[in-house]
Amino acid sequence: MTSTLILLRHGESEWNLANRFTGWVDVDLSDKGREEAKRGGQQMKEEGFQIDICFTSVLKRAIRTQAIALDEMDQMWVPVVRAWQLNERHYGSLQGLNKAETAKKFGEDQVKIWRRSYDIPPPPLDVNDPGHPRFERRYAHLDPVILPATESLAITLDRVMPFWANTIVPYLKDGKTVLIAAHGNSLRALVKHLNRISDKDILELNIPTGIPRAYELDEDLNVLSDRYLGDAAAAAAAAAAVAAQASAARA
Amino acid sequence: MTSTLILLRHGESEWNLANRFTGWVDVDLSDKGREEAKRGGQQMKEEGFQIDICFTSVLKRAIRTQAIALDEMDQMWVPVVRAWQLNERHYGSLQGLNKAETAKKFGEDQVKIWRRSYDIPPPPLDVNDPGHPRFERRYAHLDPVILPATESLAITLDRVMPFWANTIVPYLKDGKTVLIAAHGNSLRALVKHLNRISDKDILELNIPTGIPRAYELDEDLNVLSDRYLGDAAAAAAAAAAVAAQASAARA
Repeated sequence: MTSTLILLRHGESEWNLANRFTGWVDVDLSDKGREEAKRGGQQMKEEGFQIDICFTSVLKRAIRTQAIALDEMDQMWVPVVRAWQLNERHYGSLQGLNKAETAKKFGEDQVKIWRRSYDIPPPPLDVNDPGHPRFERRYAHLDPVILPATESLAITLDRVMPFWANTIVPYLKDGKTVLIAAHGNSLRALVKHLNRISDKDILELNIPTGIPRAYELDEDLNVLSDRYLGDAAAAAAAAAAVAAQASAARA
Repeated sequence: MTSTLILLRHGESEWNLANRFTGWVDVDLSDKGREEAKRGGQQMKEEGFQIDICFTSVLKRAIRTQAIALDEMDQMWVPVVRAWQLNERHYGSLQGLNKAETAKKFGEDQVKIWRRSYDIPPPPLDVNDPGHPRFERRYAHLDPVILPATESLAITLDRVMPFWANTIVPYLKDGKTVLIAAHGNSLRALVKHLNRISDKDILELNIPTGIPRAYELDEDLNVLSDRYLGDAAAAAAAAAAVAAQASAARA
């Protein structure tokens, strides 16, 4: 039995223009980001995908992307699971800072290390910082020891992968069509796993925003095929734009 | 331990103007209906309600009402359960017909009986009618014998109440704040139960659209208080408008 997995990265947020590190800060989509979600939904609709279950993070830029896309597909009734494990990488004390502020505070070279290394996290938020997730109601049901105050990509994988294995995979093993609407780094974790990409190479992989990436998987979750929906050149251009933005600014 | 239950009836749909029996047909909100949902969300926000879990139907006019209201409250991350058991009453073969068509087909007196009786359902959809729920993907996981082809209010209660008792009540017993965004008749079922309203009187009870009704419940689910948010006169006027519309047209 094969199954279908579709990954959808949210589009432009209101902090893209301000060029700030976002991470777990609950910033909304910009109008452009909403358009990207709509286009992604249209592409899935054109190809006739029938979603059985949808997973997203507890951050509104991903939740709204999922909602706009399912609405566009006329599949608003599909069950949606909102999971903190699919949140963006937590950027620690860089969250809220823009590029200039960050370079001034920590130096250009240090910022590059945090952005480009697989397992070196930025400095953590102080446990008493009002921005620490332990003060947010959406995380109040969790044991505070599992709430990050900063994350590398490696640490992000450590919370994405158990959720994948325990909660998402059973639907795929059952032949379902699963949509995951999430973030650049939580989706990187999944792509790294599915496409067996090395720790070194994964940071070079840029997932374009708003363009659904569809996998056909066999019953052992091996990738039979994967592709971006729509025009391949458009997807490549979008990925290049993401890469250019990242190298010009924040990860 | 007390708990809070908020009921929110969706506002105007695109078939309100066309004056058609809607039932399980998946008609969207009109622009006015979206405005009603937004106002309902603002009222909950002003009173500082913090929702722990939200329940809605699998029909988009309720799902969108819930989504708009939670967005307005900046609580998009709250878990949402979409359950067919909270759907509107199924109107059988009246679905899609407008008032004039219905009166012509069945006679005014007969239509009155279906609209005003507690336990007489309209004629069922034929089991092979393409509009029968067994042909819809959103009900495909259910045993078709439980899918209605028509419902009286009594039959509607028979599927709302087990879902209430088994799935919603545990959260209330746990002291949670629960929002239910649903339909005139699935909410009537709940109000009938909570406020101990007779079979005869419940059909006279008109729930205004878009105005949240907040219950404070004790641990045995007895009603300690219930009220419509905002201005009491506005809620009464809205209920009267609903009643006038119903008596002028469809249930």
